[in-house]
Amino acid sequence: MAPQIRRLRVGISGLGRMGARHANHFLHRTPRAELVAAFSPDPKELEWAKIHLEPWGVKLYSNYDEMLKHENLEAVCVATATTVHAEHTIKAIEAGKHVLCEKPLSTKLEISQQVLETSRRHPNVKVMCGFSRRFDPSYRSAHALTSTGSIGRPTILRSQTCDKYDPSGFFVAYAEFSGGIFVDCNIHDIDLALWFFSADITSPDGRVEKGELPKVKSVVAFGVTALEPGLKKHGDVDNGVGVVEFWDERIAYFYSSRMNPPGQHDMTEIIGTTGKLSVNANPANGLLESHLSTGIHRDIPQNYYDRFEQAFVEEAREFANAVLDGKGVPIDLESSVEAVRIGVALQDSLRSGKKIQFDREGRRVDEDGQARARL
Amino acid sequence: MAPQIRRLRVGISGLGRMGARHANHFLHRTPRAELVAAFSPDPKELEWAKIHLEPWGVKLYSNYDEMLKHENLEAVCVATATTVHAEHTIKAIEAGKHVLCEKPLSTKLEISQQVLETSRRHPNVKVMCGFSRRFDPSYRSAHALTSTGSIGRPTILRSQTCDKYDPSGFFVAYAEFSGGIFVDCNIHDIDLALWFFSADITSPDGRVEKGELPKVKSVVAFGVTALEPGLKKHGDVDNGVGVVEFWDERIAYFYSSRMNPPGQHDMTEIIGTTGKLSVNANPANGLLESHLSTGIHRDIPQNYYDRFEQAFVEEAREFANAVLDGKGVPIDLESSVEAVRIGVALQDSLRSGKKIQFDREGRRVDEDGQARARL
Amino acid sequence: MAPQIRRLRVGISGLGRMGARHANHFLHRTPRAELVAAFSPDPKELEWAKIHLEPWGVKLYSNYDEMLKHENLEAVCVATATTVHAEHTIKAIEAGKHVLCEKPLSTKLEISQQVLETSRRHPNVKVMCGFSRRFDPSYRSAHALTSTGSIGRPTILRSQTCDKYDPSGFFVAYAEFSGGIFVDCNIHDIDLALWFFSADITSPDGRVEKGELPKVKSVVAFGVTALEPGLKKHGDVDNGVGVVEFWDERIAYFYSSRMNPPGQHDMTEIIGTTGKLSVNANPANGLLESHLSTGIHRDIPQNYYDRFEQAFVEEAREFANAVLDGKGVPIDLESSVEAVRIGVALQDSLRSGKKIQFDREGRRVDEDGQARARL
Amino acid sequence: MAPQIRRLRVGISGLGRMGARHANHFLHRTPRAELVAAFSPDPKELEWAKIHLEPWGVKLYSNYDEMLKHENLEAVCVATATTVHAEHTIKAIEAGKHVLCEKPLSTKLEISQQVLETSRRHPNVKVMCGFSRRFDPSYRSAHALTSTGSIGRPTILRSQTCDKYDPSGFFVAYAEFSGGIFVDCNIHDIDLALWFFSADITSPDGRVEKGELPKVKSVVAFGVTALEPGLKKHGDVDNGVGVVEFWDERIAYFYSSRMNPPGQHDMTEIIGTTGKLSVNANPANGLLESHLSTGIHRDIPQNYYDRFEQAFVEEAREFANAVLDGKGVPIDLESSVEAVRIGVALQDSLRSGKKIQFDREGRRVDEDGQARARL
Repeated sequence: MAPQIRRLRVGISGLGRMGARHANHFLHRTPRAELVAAFSPDPKELEWAKIHLEPWGVKLYSNYDEMLKHENLEAVCVATATTVHAEHTIKAIEAGKHVLCEKPLSTKLEISQQVLETSRRHPNVKVMCGFSRRFDPSYRSAHALTSTGSIGRPTILRSQTCDKYDPSGFFVAYAEFSGGIFVDCNIHDIDLALWFFSADITSPDGRVEKGELPKVKSVVAFGVTALEPGLKKHGDVDNGVGVVEFWDERIAYFYSSRMNPPGQHDMTEIIGTTGKLSVNANPANGLLESHLSTGIHRDIPQNYYDRFEQAFVEEAREFANAVLDGKGVPIDLESSVEAVRIGVALQDSLRSGKKIQFDREGRRVDEDGQARARL
Repeated sequence: MAPQIRRLRVGISGLGRMGARHANHFLHRTPRAELVAAFSPDPKELEWAKIHLEPWGVKLYSNYDEMLKHENLEAVCVATATTVHAEHTIKAIEAGKHVLCEKPLSTKLEISQQVLETSRRHPNVKVMCGFSRRFDPSYRSAHALTSTGSIGRPTILRSQTCDKYDPSGFFVAYAEFSGGIFVDCNIHDIDLALWFFSADITSPDGRVEKGELPKVKSVVAFGVTALEPGLKKHGDVDNGVGVVEFWDERIAYFYSSRMNPPGQHDMTEIIGTTGKLSVNANPANGLLESHLSTGIHRDIPQNYYDRFEQAFVEEAREFANAVLDGKGVPIDLESSVEAVRIGVALQDSLRSGKKIQFDREGRRVDEDGQARARL
Repeated sequence: MAPQIRRLRVGISGLGRMGARHANHFLHRTPRAELVAAFSPDPKELEWAKIHLEPWGVKLYSNYDEMLKHENLEAVCVATATTVHAEHTIKAIEAGKHVLCEKPLSTKLEISQQVLETSRRHPNVKVMCGFSRRFDPSYRSAHALTSTGSIGRPTILRSQTCDKYDPSGFFVAYAEFSGGIFVDCNIHDIDLALWFFSADITSPDGRVEKGELPKVKSVVAFGVTALEPGLKKHGDVDNGVGVVEFWDERIAYFYSSRMNPPGQHDMTEIIGTTGKLSVNANPANGLLESHLSTGIHRDIPQNYYDRFEQAFVEEAREFANAVLDGKGVPIDLESSVEAVRIGVALQDSLRSGKKIQFDREGRRVDEDGQARARL
Repeated sequence: MAPQIRRLRVGISGLGRMGARHANHFLHRTPRAELVAAFSPDPKELEWAKIHLEPWGVKLYSNYDEMLKHENLEAVCVATATTVHAEHTIKAIEAGKHVLCEKPLSTKLEISQQVLETSRRHPNVKVMCGFSRRFDPSYRSAHALTSTGSIGRPTILRSQTCDKYDPSGFFVAYAEFSGGIFVDCNIHDIDLALWFFSADITSPDGRVEKGELPKVKSVVAFGVTALEPGLKKHGDVDNGVGVVEFWDERIAYFYSSRMNPPGQHDMTEIIGTTGKLSVNANPANGLLESHLSTGIHRDIPQNYYDRFEQAFVEEAREFANAVLDGKGVPIDLESSVEAVRIGVALQDSLRSGKKIQFDREGRRVDEDGQARARL
């Protein structure tokens, strides 16, 4: 018997580190989707796909535009290099395909805004930027508790993204295109701040206080190159500290590092007027501890995917559900553009050493007090 | 393009609580297997299957023998009531189908041994009893560390299975057929003792000390009915403590409970001559903690499946791999029979109040010193 | 100005490892007591005392009977070798001195009972056996929660005493006089069982259910000599597992080890019908963790005193308070004798391999069903 | 026999909340010191002292200058209101008394520098500002590990001071004199940054890299009044976030809160090039956890003293040791002035909304690039 189930027909763009993972998720772990096509410009990635995707019936393409014409293709997952995210997303939207795009939309604010504008011109096409942490069960529980008023008004958010040190020098080369540590790493933390600070909050008496996207008032950033001085030539650092102040009396502060020795340690605290939620204050990789003559030891996840694998799978499932069921996607695109605005401003502050201010319309305010055009 | 991948064709027997989960795992989360058939004698379970399985191309049966004749069926997952485990497993073996059977094989030692004998008469059919904890990443890491000699010789094992209290009285009714708390709950812990105590251990110099299934020397058990006096009529308890001594100077001790208030708390310590491994000493459900005016709070998994869902999925995958790749299944059937021997003896000790002794051939030794026939 | 405060005049017997600590506690950390005299038969210990005690005005004695005659001496802390505990305690009582005696009263039940009888003949003399864990803040909080009904009826207690491995062979020599692992180590855990199982429990409605000392019904013990085979000649082991069943449907089970690699790990779970309290499930020495390339590491206390130093100090303070304020001492002497009864029975079970039964009057029941005289 | 021990004769100034504690520490918990005198201008505090200090032979004074003349007085512990710290410290120094002064020296940089200058004119008088965290065992272990090179070069330090919310409005009134949240709370965290960033580091090969007090390059601060809008009138906040950049490529960032619901949560991470040390990431009050139907719960310390009581005692002991043994005090006074400089600058940044810059000589740099005179 052939299945009678309606499944979303997905194509993937990019089969690098994350692309291959997304491909596997849509192929094997998203019951309501099927991976029907895959594109990569890289022959080595296509070699991999011949072994791991083609036998499952996935058509391979070395030309993105061709893949967009794949028969009955409904949606595209964009997981290419960051510099191509926006171009592929815009093309897919214009071809009428729903899009799940890896974060960030772009390392440039203007380009991110073009994606948003394109999306607005195609209201029937669903577009979502893949901020994976929003699909992690611990973050979701935290958000659900926030929404029921458990911690009062979320006021301060602290969040960090710390990668295990990679002595290969990969991050130095990568820094040329990554947009810098605040756009590449802390963009996740920025997104969390926007998510928690815009939560609707239901009081015990059932009254709902609608949340709205908070408006940035000022940002400031600091950084050092503790292990990789080569980063300086790209205006980047391997340890960054940033603070974001919002107009509605909220503060988010961030830390990012490329040199965390035991592995990946991403953590967040959401601090409200009556409680605090902490996610991953006490990191561990599973439930094992070793009691040895040298003390008690435990491991932590080695990389971002080790930590968030299930969240990526859930992201794929919810994207498919939203399209098939005609619901809104779980992450608003405007919020993802706002994350780029803040990340870029932090990176600018890092480079200039200056505190950057915004007016209530989101325009940068020069030191002489004049607002620049809203980017 | 249709997939060109070879996938194991699996049928499932039983669509109750665990059966439905196994069905979903083979259907959606085991890339190298496909669920082709499903049996249940229960019209309500078949109703569920009409909605959740049939649309995916699964053929439904209300007669187990008919399902065994399903065209090209290769393997069966037996997830019925415990009392039928052995019968369905034996029938499947005799029909040439590979079997993954839920634990325990039976609540009776004699019947478990019949399964083992049937399996031995069909050496080309793979049979595995599904002790799910062996597929949990934390337990696997613990076993891998044990195998590399990290803790020296495993000597003491402590393990517990504690279920959240269910005030509905379910466990009282269930006790009639469950075999008792040591056979139903601690069977997992017993299996872990057999697994860790039989581990091959590789010394730092590369020398391998082959492990072998440890031989039970004596068992003793105690119990109380703290919340459910109704259990007494089935010779059962809601809190049990048991100790198992092996002939090779090792001890395992167990605790089981039906009344753990916050949820499921299964934990294990493997204590060796140079180190100890603990699995889940510090239980949590994810990485969230709430800091409220009443203190710091965290949740734990609510039931066995919450805790071990990924292990069940991995179990299905490895069973499929073993069959497709012609490898041995990861859990030896003889060990699963030994687990029943120990579980039944603990339950006997609980009922009689006596310490039960075994000779080196596994025969119970009566108080007058004579060995009874090895069951 | 000289102090006008009334302080208890204490002498100490024994200045070995624990004796020196007790001396320091009474000298420097018990504001309402003063150490006025100290006895040791050991010239090396007296050398130490000349430096550390005498300059503070403590009179030193090499004869215990002489110390008992020290002018205005009011109380004695007995911290000699275990074999002398009872003799010195009895002598002190008979001389009218209040006594704080290190645990256990004796490794023999008969002798412990003689101490109790002597105490009963001198009702104005306060005698307390120093079970230090009862003065640890975590255990006290647990007991307070138990007393307010937080966990319902305490039903199961698990407790362990695990020492860091001492490769010097000390424990082998020590085993000749220690009474065995259950009397030396698990006596603390036994005492905790007696304490928690006899707690008065106040219901939310204010009704108090008076606790009483639980009566042992049976005990069984197991053990191995994993690292120190020399222990066998003293009938002792380096890893022991014991279970104690009480007549009122409660069970305590214990583990002790002389080979815990990272240090001292004593822990307890008190399991009630509506909740569980755990003390030290997640051991650590302070609040420091190291995140290194080899993972996350923490230390634990290295020995019993590292773990319970503050409890010993509190023990001294409360003993002084009880005497000065004419209150009862916080640990009932009958309970301390009961702890010896259970410890000795576990040690007997370990040696004989038999389960040992008691009737409701506390008399051992032979296998032919006859009660032996209550020891 | 009267003690023949030489003990430091200490007087205390101020018997409020912290003063009474310091008095008790010197009286009962500092064997090498004796409290001989105590001053308070407050009749209620003197009432308390009549009961708790006088009977132990402590002479009470309502005039500080009189106390300084107490016969043979050798040292003073200044624990008055912050506004009087500097005046009493300077008077004591000039009277030739060693001083342990509660933090901060002053809420004003100029006055703190006067204390330093007075101290320099009296080189034989020992003066120490009591930054209690430096005496906490976990912080000390962290510093010892840092000194042996365990984490490479300390590069980033994160530290927070979070008080339990006090709904009485106490903090609003207190803000008038406290110097603001960065001077009152984060001064501890600033001191930790100075301590860890100036640590001598011994390489495995025995080479010592001498540390020196790091020079502040810039600071920036943010804050909100989430629960206590009344703080605004004092230019203060109930939640503050500050970042401090040093000239030698190091960053410290801080958080302080007056509204932490479960209690006191002070924590610190010291992040080096090869490792990170965390102190109190996983807060708890002792070792007890409650497993209830609502989840697993634990408490944390309720206030600063609950958390750091032993550290205060150790501080008193080490101060006494330093004086009696003629060693340097463990905390350099220049560092304590530097902490005030940074705290005051953070508070200024909070008020002005500007990033504040310093040149390499510690002078604030105006926006036109000119250095102001070093305060």
